[in-house]
Amino acid sequence: MKTIAITGAGGQIGYALVFRVLSFFAEKNEKIHLKLIDLPAVMPSMEGLAMEIDDCAFSCVESLTITDELHVGFKDVDWAFLVGAMPRQKGMERSDLLSKNALIFKEQGQALNEVANPDAHVLVVGNPCNTNALIAAHYAPKLNKNHFYGMMMLDELRARAQVANKVDTQVENVKNMIVWGNHSATQFPDYTHATVDGKQVTELCDETWLKDTFLPKNQKRGAEVIAARGASSAASAANAALETMKRVLYPDGQPFSLGIHSNGEYGAQAGLMASYPCMVSSGEARIINDIELDSYVKAQAQLSFDELADEYNQLKTLNIL
Amino acid sequence: MKTIAITGAGGQIGYALVFRVLSFFAEKNEKIHLKLIDLPAVMPSMEGLAMEIDDCAFSCVESLTITDELHVGFKDVDWAFLVGAMPRQKGMERSDLLSKNALIFKEQGQALNEVANPDAHVLVVGNPCNTNALIAAHYAPKLNKNHFYGMMMLDELRARAQVANKVDTQVENVKNMIVWGNHSATQFPDYTHATVDGKQVTELCDETWLKDTFLPKNQKRGAEVIAARGASSAASAANAALETMKRVLYPDGQPFSLGIHSNGEYGAQAGLMASYPCMVSSGEARIINDIELDSYVKAQAQLSFDELADEYNQLKTLNIL
Repeated sequence: MKTIAITGAGGQIGYALVFRVLSFFAEKNEKIHLKLIDLPAVMPSMEGLAMEIDDCAFSCVESLTITDELHVGFKDVDWAFLVGAMPRQKGMERSDLLSKNALIFKEQGQALNEVANPDAHVLVVGNPCNTNALIAAHYAPKLNKNHFYGMMMLDELRARAQVANKVDTQVENVKNMIVWGNHSATQFPDYTHATVDGKQVTELCDETWLKDTFLPKNQKRGAEVIAARGASSAASAANAALETMKRVLYPDGQPFSLGIHSNGEYGAQAGLMASYPCMVSSGEARIINDIELDSYVKAQAQLSFDELADEYNQLKTLNIL
Repeated sequence: MKTIAITGAGGQIGYALVFRVLSFFAEKNEKIHLKLIDLPAVMPSMEGLAMEIDDCAFSCVESLTITDELHVGFKDVDWAFLVGAMPRQKGMERSDLLSKNALIFKEQGQALNEVANPDAHVLVVGNPCNTNALIAAHYAPKLNKNHFYGMMMLDELRARAQVANKVDTQVENVKNMIVWGNHSATQFPDYTHATVDGKQVTELCDETWLKDTFLPKNQKRGAEVIAARGASSAASAANAALETMKRVLYPDGQPFSLGIHSNGEYGAQAGLMASYPCMVSSGEARIINDIELDSYVKAQAQLSFDELADEYNQLKTLNIL
């Protein structure tokens, strides 16, 4: 029986994620222990969340824990969704954001190290997700560093949906759309290898659209959703988090985008957490390392890898790594 | 291919429901046309909702319509979730609430009558849900009046969860917990027929707890959730709405609580919409009409039926029915 933990469970993404996760396991007829973690100030409203979970009568809930203590919430955890993070606030420099989050994910890594199942998988949703995942992994040496992930699935799904809309097909027909690098504006959704019904996307969509519309739109999609909704992506972020868990724990044999520990593949600095095309075999997500990239894709991926290296170096300077 | 409509799609319940519905049909490998309806003022943020739906890349979305026009949103609809309603505001009398909502559901009934699939099913979530369903059915004579429902599933699930917590079992083991009457504080969750693993709930729980704790807690659960969360039930209401659709369209052979057109069964005034134990056979939800009720249950159900009759009579006075 799996133990699933969600941090930031009292927030908007958490609220969407909790019920999607429960519905997924209920449908699968798999029982879980669910541990919902948030800050002490959020505990009263988390009681309301617990009531609503009760009131859904999901058959999969073997136990439910609501807590503001990491050591309780991560105890024996098999899969952790690290959703909670310090959001970027007005006037905050990117380096402030990095260092404030570094402390959060350092503490979470330490707690995971002490009480989680050593084989646990940890998916970081809270941004900057790849670097936050790197910090958590660094402070959890008893866990497998290849089991720490940054969430890139939302970027991949956004890219696939854009192409599906453009060529008027269903999203599931858009395949092999891998996002390289960072979950940020430097990300590179690699349309050069993507296909629709076996045809290359580059044959179906003209290059001007791909470079001048598709790429910037994907890179800035988060801001576009905020502008329209008046709130950041919640349900779609939760969906991508669940989808990532499904791809890792219940693999379907398709490649997918995942922020994962780099050994230097495709020119990234070894030791970074970065997004790569991954496949799961024998229960382990692995980087597909034999894809031919042309010089344009290589350069785009490198730009994004370099941004991650820059985040890494800032953490070194701050003595966090 | 089913056409599903959701009113009030831009609200909190709507936001939770949209993604649960899409995930359900994606999992079932069934394509749907999804029509999301809300007021003109909400259209800009609905564009954000549409983006997030795109970004989830659900395989079931054959088409997505966002509209503030009922005739567009209900066109050819097979299943409508009527979520949007005027909420009770400070200083508003119950009769104000009734009449304001009556106009909303009259207009929706008329639009359904003109453009929906005549065989459509209509589940009213917006309160007062049973009486709102009655009004919509009244103004949609081309549709089957037995296909209009008031949502009672949240009350049933809350009752089952309470008993499960009390006797320390899983919710799915609590069966045959039917809520009679109205979705209001007069509702009667009938513990006298409910069972846990084949044992009567009345044998497992003492009568004082059932009468003095269980009943009032269920009747006032909505308020309790608001007090804890600082917001009304959203995810659990959405869950109950989806669950009702599943029970009607994909029946599992279990009895469940449903607000449905009454022909006077069990002492209700004929013509009301009221909650009864229902089963689906040959695609139709039907009232189970051979259950023996003791005088206590009869009297409790009658109180709640009488409240519904009272709502009905007020609408007569207002010339809405």
